[in-house]
Amino acid sequence: MAPPGRLITIEGLDGAGKTTLAAGLEQELRRRRLPVVALREPGGVVLGERIRALLADPVLDVDPRAEALLFAASRAQLVAERLAPLLRDGAWVLLDRFVDSSLAYQGGGRELGVDAVAAINATAVGDVRPDRTLLLRLDPATGRRRLAARGDEADRMERLDEPFFARTAAAYDRIAEADPGRVRVLDATAEPDAVLAAALAALADLLGPEGDSSGT
Amino acid sequence: MAPPGRLITIEGLDGAGKTTLAAGLEQELRRRRLPVVALREPGGVVLGERIRALLADPVLDVDPRAEALLFAASRAQLVAERLAPLLRDGAWVLLDRFVDSSLAYQGGGRELGVDAVAAINATAVGDVRPDRTLLLRLDPATGRRRLAARGDEADRMERLDEPFFARTAAAYDRIAEADPGRVRVLDATAEPDAVLAAALAALADLLGPEGDSSGT
Repeated sequence: MAPPGRLITIEGLDGAGKTTLAAGLEQELRRRRLPVVALREPGGVVLGERIRALLADPVLDVDPRAEALLFAASRAQLVAERLAPLLRDGAWVLLDRFVDSSLAYQGGGRELGVDAVAAINATAVGDVRPDRTLLLRLDPATGRRRLAARGDEADRMERLDEPFFARTAAAYDRIAEADPGRVRVLDATAEPDAVLAAALAALADLLGPEGDSSGT
Repeated sequence: MAPPGRLITIEGLDGAGKTTLAAGLEQELRRRRLPVVALREPGGVVLGERIRALLADPVLDVDPRAEALLFAASRAQLVAERLAPLLRDGAWVLLDRFVDSSLAYQGGGRELGVDAVAAINATAVGDVRPDRTLLLRLDPATGRRRLAARGDEADRMERLDEPFFARTAAAYDRIAEADPGRVRVLDATAEPDAVLAAALAALADLLGPEGDSSGT
């Protein structure tokens, strides 16, 4: 029987550098011969992709509560179809955004309340919990500047205004304060190599002896 | 300013006669010059219709938790787009299925637990609650026979097996026992006229003096 897998989630505002960190971590974990799988919601799950299409359709004018429930539905399907089986098989899953994104964006940003969004997501994920969460911390103004410079296609979230960004960032900070054992805060304004090194240090206890900073 | 509206929901197993009762009640309330609006989920709300299409797509193999969350998302949009405005404007809304359907079908039938499904739906509906719920009570075997005789297109729910029906019926019974002031149980095996008369009696306090059985 395979050893139980690990779930490592990467969180933060858009523009914080989650994609870059995920790519670096994937490479580093692969170098250590860990069975790593990198995913981002909706994770190639067809129902999730169909739900994302609904959320992105400007004609539908999705109510904030419906939005939170749709994200949770997509997540429930991801857990059932991919995450739970992968973790059962011993995979190390690097996941770009998970429940904390909904707590921060819908609970904080959209002001539905973190507790209400947590209750929804408790049903969505069952007993699948991150072993570690890496929160790329960025002040909202820098995040917005980075996004603008990158010229990304603005999605529903990213079109939203400055107070929304500030509420989301504050909610992320509260999540980290409430659960310091799981959530490790990384300075997203550091150079990518420094962010990766900090992330590996924050995973050292999970990675074991080969995984401490002297080994990199 | 309009007086506050009323929300009357009609619940029960498929085949219990909800559509017939809704039509009879609509006619009767209209005769009494009440501003009645008859709806059934998804209620003409575009997002709701799109969500129903996902739920009906056999290719997607929707996980039960995702299913419950999708129904709740559809309901949240119905509340925001139609129900809340209608009730604010003083309408009497007759609604064929609402939160109790999810408690019974997903909570009971699919065994997600009534409390978990209630938590999801609390966010979906906010402070919109039925003033009265008419539960058309039917033993599961009779319901299944009626459906088969009617030759309806079987949807995801209706294709499910006999234990599923039994669990759903039992969950409906528990909902009625827990909240007898709101939920009134009607015998769905009675003739349609008798069911309608019983429903009007169960609404007499809401309908006022013109609404008692002597006025019909």
